[in-house]
Amino acid sequence: MCELLAMSANVPTDIRFSFSALSQRGGVTGKHTDGWGISFYEDKGCRSLHDPNPSAHSELAKFLRAYPIKSRIVIAHVRKANRGRVALENTHPFIREMWGQNWSFAHNGQLKGIKKRTLGQYEPVGATDSEHAFCWLLHQLRQMYPTRPSDYKLERAFSELFASLRELGVFNALLSDGRTLYTSCSTKLCYIRRVAPFGRASLIDEDMEVDFAAETSPNDKVIVIASQPLTSNETWTHFTAGSTVIFRDGDVIRHYEGVVAPPL
Amino acid sequence: MCELLAMSANVPTDIRFSFSALSQRGGVTGKHTDGWGISFYEDKGCRSLHDPNPSAHSELAKFLRAYPIKSRIVIAHVRKANRGRVALENTHPFIREMWGQNWSFAHNGQLKGIKKRTLGQYEPVGATDSEHAFCWLLHQLRQMYPTRPSDYKLERAFSELFASLRELGVFNALLSDGRTLYTSCSTKLCYIRRVAPFGRASLIDEDMEVDFAAETSPNDKVIVIASQPLTSNETWTHFTAGSTVIFRDGDVIRHYEGVVAPPL
Repeated sequence: MCELLAMSANVPTDIRFSFSALSQRGGVTGKHTDGWGISFYEDKGCRSLHDPNPSAHSELAKFLRAYPIKSRIVIAHVRKANRGRVALENTHPFIREMWGQNWSFAHNGQLKGIKKRTLGQYEPVGATDSEHAFCWLLHQLRQMYPTRPSDYKLERAFSELFASLRELGVFNALLSDGRTLYTSCSTKLCYIRRVAPFGRASLIDEDMEVDFAAETSPNDKVIVIASQPLTSNETWTHFTAGSTVIFRDGDVIRHYEGVVAPPL
Repeated sequence: MCELLAMSANVPTDIRFSFSALSQRGGVTGKHTDGWGISFYEDKGCRSLHDPNPSAHSELAKFLRAYPIKSRIVIAHVRKANRGRVALENTHPFIREMWGQNWSFAHNGQLKGIKKRTLGQYEPVGATDSEHAFCWLLHQLRQMYPTRPSDYKLERAFSELFASLRELGVFNALLSDGRTLYTSCSTKLCYIRRVAPFGRASLIDEDMEVDFAAETSPNDKVIVIASQPLTSNETWTHFTAGSTVIFRDGDVIRHYEGVVAPPL
C-alpha cells in the first residue's frame, strides 16, 4: 500500500509542513520506501518531482522540505510497490496532457483485472496498475468529450469513472488539472479544512509544530487530504467508503456517494 | 534566443560539469534569465525539472549542480523569452507520452506561422511556438505510425519533419525518447565526443576544471551537445546549418543534410 497527500487552497500555499510528515512515512514512521513523487501546480504549469529512493532518506525530498514552493494544488505519493518494480517510471504522480492541460494522478490500492480494460491514445510507460487506470480514465474522458466539457459534466463523469474503478478493488486516488482536485475513496482518505481563525498544529510523524496564524491571511482557505491524519491536535474528516469528493480553491465542491447513475 | 544542452552516453553519466556551465548562462555569463529546465532519463523513466527563475540564481539549479543524477540521455534548456510570457508552463523541455514512452523536447529559435499548423490529440499547455511545434511533430508521427515504427523509419521521419520546421525560421532543437537523441540545427549547435584516453576539460563560463580520466571507465563514450562550446581546451564540432543529426549510446548514428526527400 501507499500513502497519499494532496492540497487544495484559494491562495498559493506552502505544503512543506504536510510533506514533511508524508516523507517520514517513506522509511522512518512508515514502510513506504519504494519511491515518492510530488506535483505542484503554478497556474497552468506543473512541476513534478519523482525519486525511486525512499523519501525519508532522499536528497531531493530533503531539498523540498527546505524549499518553499507555493501552490494552490499539490498531489504527492509515497510508494510501497505491489505491481511494478521499484523504478522511476513506476513512481506516482503520473502526468499526461489532455485538452491542453496537465493532469496528475496518484493512487493507493490494487485493481484486479484493470489491465484488461482497453486503452486508446494514452499508453502506460511503466508497469503499474495505477498508470493503466489513469490512461483508461483519460481515454474514457476523451471518448466522451473531444474538447473539455463544463465543470459539472466533468465532475459527473469522474464520479462515474471512479465508481467503475472502485468495483475492481481498492481505488483511493487523487487527480487534478491544477484547478480542481478529484478524489476517490474506497477504504481510507481523510481531510482537514483550515480557515480563520487559524491555530497551531503538531505533526504525528515528527516533532514539528506550526502556527498557521503566522503563515496565513484571514481569507485563506486550505484543505489538506491524506491517507491518514497527519496532525495530532486537529479533527480530520474521514471520507465515506465508496465516495468521490471534489475540491476547488480550498472548498469541498461536490460529494458523490457510491455510483451516480443518471445520464449526463 | 535560448541555449540548449544535451548528452548521449553509453553508460549513466553525471552531467553536472556541463550543466554548471549552462546554468551560468542563465544570468551570469548569458542573459537567458527567463527560466530553465532539464530532463534526465533513467531507463524508461524521466525526471524533468523546471523553474521559471534564472538558472544562475535558482535554488533548484544550485541543488542540481551538487546532486549527482547519472543518466544516459539528458536534455536541458535556459530560456530567453520571445513568444510566451515567463511562466512555468512556457519552460522547456516539454514532455509528452507517445507509444508508451516519454518524449522530451527543447528548442531554440522562432518559427513564423507555426501556429497555423493543425494539431491533433497533442495540445500545447503554454503559449510558446516551441510547444506548438512539438505537438505538431508528435501529431504527424502518430498519423504516420499508430504504433512505433523501426528505428530507421523513425530517423527518416524526424529528418523530414525537422527539415519542414526549419523552413519556418530557426529550428535548433533537441528531442529524445530516452534512448535516441534527435537534433536539428538551423544556425548553431555543436558537440564534443569524449572517449578514452580521457583528458582534462576547463569550462569557459566558470573557473572549473574536471579530469574525466578519474570519472570514467575505458569503454565509456559520452557526447555533449550545446548551442556554443562549453569548454575552452577541447575542439567542438559545429553542426552544418540545415542538418539533422541523430545520436545513440555516445555515438553519432546518422547525419542528414537538408531535406531528405525519398519516400519512407
